[in-house]
Amino acid sequence: MALTHFDDQGNAVMVDVSDKAETARVAVARGRVTAAPETVALIRDRGLGKGDVLSVAQLAGIMGAKRTADLIPLCHPLALTKVTVDLAVDEAAAAVAITATCRVTGRTGVEMEALTAVSVAALTVYDMCKAVDRGMRITDIHLVHKAGGRSGPFDVGGGDE
Amino acid sequence: MALTHFDDQGNAVMVDVSDKAETARVAVARGRVTAAPETVALIRDRGLGKGDVLSVAQLAGIMGAKRTADLIPLCHPLALTKVTVDLAVDEAAAAVAITATCRVTGRTGVEMEALTAVSVAALTVYDMCKAVDRGMRITDIHLVHKAGGRSGPFDVGGGDE
Amino acid sequence: MALTHFDDQGNAVMVDVSDKAETARVAVARGRVTAAPETVALIRDRGLGKGDVLSVAQLAGIMGAKRTADLIPLCHPLALTKVTVDLAVDEAAAAVAITATCRVTGRTGVEMEALTAVSVAALTVYDMCKAVDRGMRITDIHLVHKAGGRSGPFDVGGGDE
Amino acid sequence: MALTHFDDQGNAVMVDVSDKAETARVAVARGRVTAAPETVALIRDRGLGKGDVLSVAQLAGIMGAKRTADLIPLCHPLALTKVTVDLAVDEAAAAVAITATCRVTGRTGVEMEALTAVSVAALTVYDMCKAVDRGMRITDIHLVHKAGGRSGPFDVGGGDE
Amino acid sequence: MALTHFDDQGNAVMVDVSDKAETARVAVARGRVTAAPETVALIRDRGLGKGDVLSVAQLAGIMGAKRTADLIPLCHPLALTKVTVDLAVDEAAAAVAITATCRVTGRTGVEMEALTAVSVAALTVYDMCKAVDRGMRITDIHLVHKAGGRSGPFDVGGGDE
Amino acid sequence: MALTHFDDQGNAVMVDVSDKAETARVAVARGRVTAAPETVALIRDRGLGKGDVLSVAQLAGIMGAKRTADLIPLCHPLALTKVTVDLAVDEAAAAVAITATCRVTGRTGVEMEALTAVSVAALTVYDMCKAVDRGMRITDIHLVHKAGGRSGPFDVGGGDE
Repeated sequence: MALTHFDDQGNAVMVDVSDKAETARVAVARGRVTAAPETVALIRDRGLGKGDVLSVAQLAGIMGAKRTADLIPLCHPLALTKVTVDLAVDEAAAAVAITATCRVTGRTGVEMEALTAVSVAALTVYDMCKAVDRGMRITDIHLVHKAGGRSGPFDVGGGDE
Repeated sequence: MALTHFDDQGNAVMVDVSDKAETARVAVARGRVTAAPETVALIRDRGLGKGDVLSVAQLAGIMGAKRTADLIPLCHPLALTKVTVDLAVDEAAAAVAITATCRVTGRTGVEMEALTAVSVAALTVYDMCKAVDRGMRITDIHLVHKAGGRSGPFDVGGGDE
Repeated sequence: MALTHFDDQGNAVMVDVSDKAETARVAVARGRVTAAPETVALIRDRGLGKGDVLSVAQLAGIMGAKRTADLIPLCHPLALTKVTVDLAVDEAAAAVAITATCRVTGRTGVEMEALTAVSVAALTVYDMCKAVDRGMRITDIHLVHKAGGRSGPFDVGGGDE
Repeated sequence: MALTHFDDQGNAVMVDVSDKAETARVAVARGRVTAAPETVALIRDRGLGKGDVLSVAQLAGIMGAKRTADLIPLCHPLALTKVTVDLAVDEAAAAVAITATCRVTGRTGVEMEALTAVSVAALTVYDMCKAVDRGMRITDIHLVHKAGGRSGPFDVGGGDE
Repeated sequence: MALTHFDDQGNAVMVDVSDKAETARVAVARGRVTAAPETVALIRDRGLGKGDVLSVAQLAGIMGAKRTADLIPLCHPLALTKVTVDLAVDEAAAAVAITATCRVTGRTGVEMEALTAVSVAALTVYDMCKAVDRGMRITDIHLVHKAGGRSGPFDVGGGDE
Repeated sequence: MALTHFDDQGNAVMVDVSDKAETARVAVARGRVTAAPETVALIRDRGLGKGDVLSVAQLAGIMGAKRTADLIPLCHPLALTKVTVDLAVDEAAAAVAITATCRVTGRTGVEMEALTAVSVAALTVYDMCKAVDRGMRITDIHLVHKAGGRSGPFDVGGGDE
């Protein structure tokens, strides 16, 4: 087992994918922002009107996906063909749940794009609520589904995903 | 209690800080990437040589802090005067622990910059290890300390910080 | 009368503002997107729910203001202290009206930031409606108000602004 | 008639173009900056020498086309294969006329890239002349021609285009 | 002999590559940072530990390659499939030698990406050492090898490349 | 003698300049692109008309200066108050000579901004001439003058600067 982003001399490299075939790829990532119940209620109430926290964060997540190769040093630039970001208030868990889906026809997977979309959406929720709640946490960002690459499909086990 | 990023009509706004004084501000944020014990061991072993996962992620975190206002829609642009990002392998917890500190002399706080630095560093750890471990999670990103603004200093309670 | 962005040899320059005082500055710009009446009605109807065209364009305008110095070659980078963008459906005129306000405490004015915010918001309205209307026009983008610099305040004359 | 950039729940989405074929696409957009006759004369005179307003704006327009997906939230990133921007002084109309042409072989059209190129070129003309003329207007930005997509070619009617 | 980046009227253009075939392309570029012998020794010593000058510069070079089309006005955007940057201390020459290799499957070559990677890596070496040495020079940045385009392979002559 | 961009544990850091005073700072950098005499003659001839190589490269250099903190990992973001870039054909030396001057009122120097401006201008000259000359070299980029910081003014010795 070895890390693919280093050569024999220990130099970081952007891995050569020149010889990989272009295939249709998809990745789904998820995460949550936990907050005080009052904060979650405030987000829910705003969500009933226009200009709500969730739609600002959603847009930020979509735009964030497009900046992935600018942010992650060894990520390949990719021409994404689809990005969706969904945010939902989970009052029972006192959290905002975030799911992002990315697609591309390309030589590398799009899990980093999906994870970046979730991260930027989460940071945006945090930013918009930080004046009323300093105890929020961005948590549990993980890959849920991935398909289309050489290594075969991947799905997180368990019924709740 | 109301959200500051919306006006009376529900429009999102970049809050007017024109009349706030420029003061010295600092923020510290923390987060973790959890991984399989073998992945954590691999990161630790690489950390002994050059070109390791942790130093790539550290640089990505510092550069990410500088992109905060590009990523978070309603964040004010800030001329950061200091950014540090520290990553440490925590084998007992099977995790990489990340801490970021940002400073500025300005009209708004730098917690979003510190949180963004942690997020981008975490995404970079994930990117470099994803070929060997698809079960990693970016988790528990939160503010640890904040000082310098009108609202007074903030510290997360509890002994573990 | 001479253009300030060229030196004696005809070279374009970013004008030296080093010796100008930092003062509070504000600028307001306006513009419109004209469209078919059915398109305007569609935008208005969406505006009643969440995730509407206008709030997406508004966010894009705010973020666009922050990119001004990246886009306009000879613009000075500025740490904006306030950006607001307002969009309103004007059914009588079959148009979306856009107004942007920017503030800074700095050595140069912020009219380019306000004009860029209007332009990017207008382009975003266009993008979201182009599948249903190819005859839209982005029009009449102009400065409405400017204050805070050495040259004194400026206001567009006439009652309709 | 429905807007394509929203899903059933009203969430903004980057539309899925994964299954569209890659075809050769072209778009042409146009717009104008109106100014005082003295300003237009000044631009014309500079245009006779090097380092003129028009060539600065032209370059800004080309570079702006490449930033389209960074600026417009739901635009797909595209690897443009051609961008040209032409600016011409129209003294009779007291205006600078701007035309941009973009090409790509891809899954989505390039009208937003052409419109963005015109907008950024127009903002740059404004920036370079604003010290001598505060009454300029960026106006009449519209699509002139589009070809290569599923929906068939589009041309603005009328003889003056 | 004429320059390809201008049209008949002398306007700068992003050259139309729409009709060129997508082929596998590679480019290798090289350059050096010369410094005082003590500075070179300092870089060498740091290179033995972690967090060294060379690995920071290497990462900056890789990320810089991805920004080429943002920086060079008439460069086409490209989805790079490989970037490597190697830095080596050359004590005899009192220099740091930098080599970058870029690959793409596309319609234009990648020499500008390789040259940009070398330039940004060199600037980063300079930045990290400038507090101890103000006499450094970034020098001799040139193309070493290029293949895959219509014009046939190119190699710098001479045995030392 | 130690490198300032690392802490005691060998981690790269963006140096803390929070406690430094804001002072007026200036830096001047220089470099050259060497080329075949025919290429230099071609650039000179174009320079007599509009849309020449030198004015494109000049603009690219100015815009590049504004991207310095995006490119160089540990550079502080700065609100530049002046950037000029001058390019001159030196036929005797078969080269294009480039000089950049940057100013800021801030807590850190602007030599990296001046050096980045020279580098990006040089890369742009290269890009525009590479179809006719593959033997060009970007060379001798160095700091010529620096003033305004704690360490006192710096000037390259010798009469030729």
